[in-house]
Amino acid sequence: MSRTIRITVWNEYRHEKNDAAVAAVYPAGIHEAVAEPLRREPGFAVRTATLDEPEHGLGGGVLESTDVLIWWGHQAHEEVSDAIAARVQQRVLQGMGLVVLHSGHLSKPFTRLMGTSCLLRWREAGEKERLWVVEPGHPIADGLGAWFEMPHEEMYGERFDVPAPEAVVFISWFAGGNVFRSGCCWTRGKGRIFYFRPGHETYPTYKQREVQAVIRNAVLWTAPGSGPEMKLGDREPPLEKI
Amino acid sequence: MSRTIRITVWNEYRHEKNDAAVAAVYPAGIHEAVAEPLRREPGFAVRTATLDEPEHGLGGGVLESTDVLIWWGHQAHEEVSDAIAARVQQRVLQGMGLVVLHSGHLSKPFTRLMGTSCLLRWREAGEKERLWVVEPGHPIADGLGAWFEMPHEEMYGERFDVPAPEAVVFISWFAGGNVFRSGCCWTRGKGRIFYFRPGHETYPTYKQREVQAVIRNAVLWTAPGSGPEMKLGDREPPLEKI
Amino acid sequence: MSRTIRITVWNEYRHEKNDAAVAAVYPAGIHEAVAEPLRREPGFAVRTATLDEPEHGLGGGVLESTDVLIWWGHQAHEEVSDAIAARVQQRVLQGMGLVVLHSGHLSKPFTRLMGTSCLLRWREAGEKERLWVVEPGHPIADGLGAWFEMPHEEMYGERFDVPAPEAVVFISWFAGGNVFRSGCCWTRGKGRIFYFRPGHETYPTYKQREVQAVIRNAVLWTAPGSGPEMKLGDREPPLEKI
Amino acid sequence: MSRTIRITVWNEYRHEKNDAAVAAVYPAGIHEAVAEPLRREPGFAVRTATLDEPEHGLGGGVLESTDVLIWWGHQAHEEVSDAIAARVQQRVLQGMGLVVLHSGHLSKPFTRLMGTSCLLRWREAGEKERLWVVEPGHPIADGLGAWFEMPHEEMYGERFDVPAPEAVVFISWFAGGNVFRSGCCWTRGKGRIFYFRPGHETYPTYKQREVQAVIRNAVLWTAPGSGPEMKLGDREPPLEKI
Repeated sequence: MSRTIRITVWNEYRHEKNDAAVAAVYPAGIHEAVAEPLRREPGFAVRTATLDEPEHGLGGGVLESTDVLIWWGHQAHEEVSDAIAARVQQRVLQGMGLVVLHSGHLSKPFTRLMGTSCLLRWREAGEKERLWVVEPGHPIADGLGAWFEMPHEEMYGERFDVPAPEAVVFISWFAGGNVFRSGCCWTRGKGRIFYFRPGHETYPTYKQREVQAVIRNAVLWTAPGSGPEMKLGDREPPLEKI
Repeated sequence: MSRTIRITVWNEYRHEKNDAAVAAVYPAGIHEAVAEPLRREPGFAVRTATLDEPEHGLGGGVLESTDVLIWWGHQAHEEVSDAIAARVQQRVLQGMGLVVLHSGHLSKPFTRLMGTSCLLRWREAGEKERLWVVEPGHPIADGLGAWFEMPHEEMYGERFDVPAPEAVVFISWFAGGNVFRSGCCWTRGKGRIFYFRPGHETYPTYKQREVQAVIRNAVLWTAPGSGPEMKLGDREPPLEKI
Repeated sequence: MSRTIRITVWNEYRHEKNDAAVAAVYPAGIHEAVAEPLRREPGFAVRTATLDEPEHGLGGGVLESTDVLIWWGHQAHEEVSDAIAARVQQRVLQGMGLVVLHSGHLSKPFTRLMGTSCLLRWREAGEKERLWVVEPGHPIADGLGAWFEMPHEEMYGERFDVPAPEAVVFISWFAGGNVFRSGCCWTRGKGRIFYFRPGHETYPTYKQREVQAVIRNAVLWTAPGSGPEMKLGDREPPLEKI
Repeated sequence: MSRTIRITVWNEYRHEKNDAAVAAVYPAGIHEAVAEPLRREPGFAVRTATLDEPEHGLGGGVLESTDVLIWWGHQAHEEVSDAIAARVQQRVLQGMGLVVLHSGHLSKPFTRLMGTSCLLRWREAGEKERLWVVEPGHPIADGLGAWFEMPHEEMYGERFDVPAPEAVVFISWFAGGNVFRSGCCWTRGKGRIFYFRPGHETYPTYKQREVQAVIRNAVLWTAPGSGPEMKLGDREPPLEKI
């Protein structure tokens, strides 16, 4: 339990360069805002990677030496190469944790792992979002109260077209009249996946204490274990008499 | 598929006799308001039963000849005999469907089957409730649109202390700031259970078209199948050589 | 409930033409063996389609007018066009039922919908398989006893790399020492998916009464409902004051 | 993560005193055989408690200061007081972990939490049991290979009448022709529950390395977190305008 968890925070990193409103909130990029509180945690080793780096920053063994990958993308999902999306998918099946944030719901790695459209309702009205904890015993809810809220967020609403999560940790209430399963857990292969809804690029969501706590908890929950390898046939039991 | 489904609508039937405001909305009792639209469905045979009848109206073979039991109770949960609650539980395990409405979340049959406290937040403020369909492919959502609402309802809010449902068909939004898993499915033994939130005794909720459609769909979904009996040992396969 | 269910049985249809041992068991093709008992059911309209037909037999509106697609493939999964696999996936998300048989576990439509490798252990030793019903209340177990068996089958063994099923209806015991989740249910989008393990091409598995009953039950269980459309935004509720 | 986990191993402790064959295998009692390897783990504080102690060894604050309770019982389930069974259930709902071993499937705490009969098939024939890991990424499979086996065990077979587990970590194959979901996870309230099948009193099952590893992993997985309290109403958000 005391081993280091190697985290890579991946960010599309375009809005921050194209849009002054986003740059004002996240001058060093959303990846740095997500990475910064994780860097203060004992036992976490944190790197970042972005779309416009060679191999999207995931080559040279980075992906292979990542225990938990955090993913933020939005306007350039289609620019992520199919080959790299497939490598992320394979790494998850072999045990790498994946934490998908906000508009990452339409990213290639996530939609490939879900098998569904991952579409949802949405509205940009800067409305209040209140997240209710519906699984208070789940490790991702550690340290939280029964609810927390953000004064201004983009709205995401149901129907969220994903496979029914293995656990729904949070459900969001939006002032404008919508609800959303905002914290969703799945296992795929040996890997654990957590989707967390908040995080619009024009709001300081990732600077909020509860949001940082959830991402930290999600890293711990998705970190790989040491169960049997996914390779088949390497050590079979004796064939019983048939 | 063409056989008759034998439905028993059970109601505590106290509010309607004690409280003029309730009697004004449901003069013949909530059980009659629930039963009436079901009686118009082909293939449904509908009876009612109430707390103050002998054996709560469930003796004399009524329970044994019920395919789907619908349950509404509120102020007198403790007056339901433990023996009859245990018989309801056993019938569900053997395959009888159970549809639990609104304040029935604290009824003895439901809490025995769930194994949890079944507690929740609540508030009587006559606020708007909007139900969103989160599983559009589920049979209980047949014939519905993406959402429907009630202008005035009692609020039930998360954390709802039940085992994670096998399917969450509806999530409610309440104007006052809460969310709730309002349509929840479980299997226990051979039986299927559906909990449906709406239905406060002072609002004409059970007269609303969508609510009636959900209850009808829930009867079809919880109706027993013809899978193997739950009795063990009646026909074992040959013991393989060991 | 009385509407016709339009079924298309899809078969790769290569083994039967290449391999005399297979042709001896299934002279008209596996698709005809699967289709024949379904054609005798009231309310089922059954077509077949095969790999070597134009558009694999799924063009010209066939896929769009299919309620439940049954899929058998094995040696030629890669010859199924990506475009048609994607169309099958989309149709499932919109509500079409999908029943995947035996070696179809590695077919393109199934692996795209699962998001995992779908790999498993296997062995061809003609050993005994016994299926135990683990969800006796599930509609797919209707009419079955507590167990049934096949004297000779190919072995499929765990770990089966699929997302944890929403229901596991059957678990298989194999004489040689393996177990397998042989009847698995998932919902993806509005569609229901059932995977059923038995069915090796050199054994008369599809002529067995229980196997035919399971496939018939699976058609009924996966047949589409009439819940809300998956299109978003076509009729939104009024925005609440924010 | 570095806090101590306080474990109480509860044992009926009758077979060992009544039956020389059991005493020969477990001379200090099954509770000591289960406790001994846990005592060697850093961060575990281990106590034992048995049926014939006052309050079954769970009074005087023992239950309230237990993080994870391990339960073995068989012939004297009915002698466990209803009041203490109810206290165990309440503690689980508030977050205490519960690990139920073998014949504990019919214990009062477990059946109350499940809400079902918890019955199963069984046979004492000393046959081989092989457990297959079906969720290799689950923390309870940490450190295991793809399978492990016991040369002689009592057989437990499906249908096991429990609510569908949230995760099935192991499925057992028995030489005599049966299968069983041998490692089952549930959440109830804030608490996590793990049922582990092996452990007949006349076999040295609890001395086997893999069995000890599973129980250790189960303690870690069921240990309570620090999510929101289950008490309602202690700190409500402001009521939104309605």
